[in-house]
Amino acid sequence: MTLSIDTPALIGELETLAAFSDAPSPAVTRIVFSEQDSRARAWLRQLYADAGLEVREDAVGNTFARWRGADPALPAVGTGSHTDAIPHSGRYDGTVGVLGGLEAIRALQRSGFTPRRSIELLMFTSEEPTRFGIGCLGSRLLSGTLDPSAAARLQDSGGKTLEEVRASAGFQGSLAGVALKPGYYSGFVELHIEQGPLLERRNIPLGIVTAIAAPASLSVIIEGQGGHAGAVLMPDRHDALLAGAEIALALEAAALSTGAIDSVATTGVCEIFPGAVNSIPSRVRLGMDIRDINPARRDEILTRLDRACREISARRGVSAKIQMINRDAPATCDPAIVAILIAACEKHALAFDPMVSRAYHDSLFISRLCPASMLFIPCRAGVSHTPDEYSTPEAIGQGTLILAEALAKLAI
Amino acid sequence: MTLSIDTPALIGELETLAAFSDAPSPAVTRIVFSEQDSRARAWLRQLYADAGLEVREDAVGNTFARWRGADPALPAVGTGSHTDAIPHSGRYDGTVGVLGGLEAIRALQRSGFTPRRSIELLMFTSEEPTRFGIGCLGSRLLSGTLDPSAAARLQDSGGKTLEEVRASAGFQGSLAGVALKPGYYSGFVELHIEQGPLLERRNIPLGIVTAIAAPASLSVIIEGQGGHAGAVLMPDRHDALLAGAEIALALEAAALSTGAIDSVATTGVCEIFPGAVNSIPSRVRLGMDIRDINPARRDEILTRLDRACREISARRGVSAKIQMINRDAPATCDPAIVAILIAACEKHALAFDPMVSRAYHDSLFISRLCPASMLFIPCRAGVSHTPDEYSTPEAIGQGTLILAEALAKLAI
Repeated sequence: MTLSIDTPALIGELETLAAFSDAPSPAVTRIVFSEQDSRARAWLRQLYADAGLEVREDAVGNTFARWRGADPALPAVGTGSHTDAIPHSGRYDGTVGVLGGLEAIRALQRSGFTPRRSIELLMFTSEEPTRFGIGCLGSRLLSGTLDPSAAARLQDSGGKTLEEVRASAGFQGSLAGVALKPGYYSGFVELHIEQGPLLERRNIPLGIVTAIAAPASLSVIIEGQGGHAGAVLMPDRHDALLAGAEIALALEAAALSTGAIDSVATTGVCEIFPGAVNSIPSRVRLGMDIRDINPARRDEILTRLDRACREISARRGVSAKIQMINRDAPATCDPAIVAILIAACEKHALAFDPMVSRAYHDSLFISRLCPASMLFIPCRAGVSHTPDEYSTPEAIGQGTLILAEALAKLAI
Repeated sequence: MTLSIDTPALIGELETLAAFSDAPSPAVTRIVFSEQDSRARAWLRQLYADAGLEVREDAVGNTFARWRGADPALPAVGTGSHTDAIPHSGRYDGTVGVLGGLEAIRALQRSGFTPRRSIELLMFTSEEPTRFGIGCLGSRLLSGTLDPSAAARLQDSGGKTLEEVRASAGFQGSLAGVALKPGYYSGFVELHIEQGPLLERRNIPLGIVTAIAAPASLSVIIEGQGGHAGAVLMPDRHDALLAGAEIALALEAAALSTGAIDSVATTGVCEIFPGAVNSIPSRVRLGMDIRDINPARRDEILTRLDRACREISARRGVSAKIQMINRDAPATCDPAIVAILIAACEKHALAFDPMVSRAYHDSLFISRLCPASMLFIPCRAGVSHTPDEYSTPEAIGQGTLILAEALAKLAI
């Protein structure tokens, strides 16, 4: 079997997908179940059909494109990622795993390879938490990690429920039917950009992921007392934003206090009410994200945050409530799949590093369902979630090649 | 002359006006040149016509409703306030001065009083800075404080210019024609809720304003570096929100550092970009408001803020730029008008306090044009700019009565 990746075609498809966006190029904004998301999905379904894949969509919009194997009753081999994009982000996060996965299948088809197991490309719905506040919505439901009735009650910032929004995007049926049966996949590999600087710094083309960090995300709701910015004296104030400012800084201090480079914490959302220059903020919602490969250390950051919220709110005469959105366990990748990825790199004489993923991915949840690992490619300056996000065609082609090799090995 | 205020009618009109709102009752949102603002203006024009007043509107929508005096060539006596309302605010801020001013005129009409000077009710456009970022837009233009060509270039958050927005609301003609000639008014009195707790605490029904505080408003634009919340290590971050949090706290510290109870400073706006929970904030705009009756002390707060921005931005590797929006001088009220207000209170045996207004008002700018003062009535708990804003019918009626007495005295 000689594999040849059509990198120019793949890069062209990444460019086309990037144009389904609510932000001007080079920025990409593609929120789940938006019109641009629907248009991108339709375009992808056509690509899958062109490759002769059988397409199935579940009730939450996870899309399965299957290359039927010689023994279709066997558990399939899976690959895939996501295509939703947070506001003003880039064009490689997630998309490289979907379109690279498709090109890996097409390369195997062109090589004359006949898989024994079916090979299935999976596009996960809403890996990004932008719309419903929770990341990996599709893979949480597939893996049974998220209760379907809790998922149905999720709301976006406009107050629309997931039930309403998915129906308007054309996805019907019960969310309870989304979970995959154990044994559905024999193995799963997700190709993804690193979203960190390590591969580029060391000039290594591939990272093989051995563990995925434990993320937590939460809101802090601060309720103070509004009033006129000119008339309420400073000692009489209970300003929700100033309490929020202290809490955001306390989160940063908590992440730094662990002394571990793998502890990261971010306040990425700060919604303020009423939000007028001459009105004291009465209500603030902070959206926070905490990650560590060590869940105990991550939980220590949470404990410090909780303590800070109590101290700050008591001192300022406001209330500050933490609402956990998710608090997931880390994943260890499957040693057998890691070994297959290593063998594929060695076959093509490509250097690799074993890595920990500090970003989380749908593979965190898929790894609860079947043996799984991830393949990372370098991205410029480690930047992701901004329009500057970039991986070279060479890096994308090499990642796709190693993915194809691994899928072939897993499908035999 | 025996004056009788029809308080139930006035309260009913305040209730009706409150219903022109983009927020559900009891909250009021009435942004300048919105559809609700236009509907409220049309309803008010009918009330003015019902009272036999001659109505004129200028190019920015300031509305003049004149009760013609026996000697109409003389400079008129003015009263009035505003009807725009910031998001989710209350129903008394500004409106008491417009509808109370109208009822004062009607009470004088009912009493059989014939004014020598015309008495003119003035409704100012956009006292609130909500839409165009600058407060007292109408009175700044009337007083020649704001350059008409600079005003024309003002934009709202949707990028629409004042020129476009006022035209779509039906206000045509050059902004250069808005400024009033010196001597247009012989005197001006604005009735307003206190927006502070002092009158209520001391159980005093009326405040007579002797000075209006010097306000400044500004934006701080912070540019940092975005990135993935999981992947960028803490030491590599240049988080715009954390810099903004420190700057907001530095503003609070600067206001407290003067040691003067009249120094107040507020961060009421915090816009964050991109604003996703898993994305490091790359850009933040803070909207700030600083006030003091002592302009030197207010400017000392500004100096400390500037110093803090430089220190914080250098330490965090971000940029932080201060954009001044306005920085106004304080006003001293006219002693002769203050004396007339005092005499009116004494005539009706109503207690009063001489007061400083820490909130700013259109009278700050009108006082540059003619002798002016303000009359304050208590509001519950000093609360304003929230749906809880409340003044009793008794307080509103008493304020209107004293206003009518003063207008009569000024119009003789």
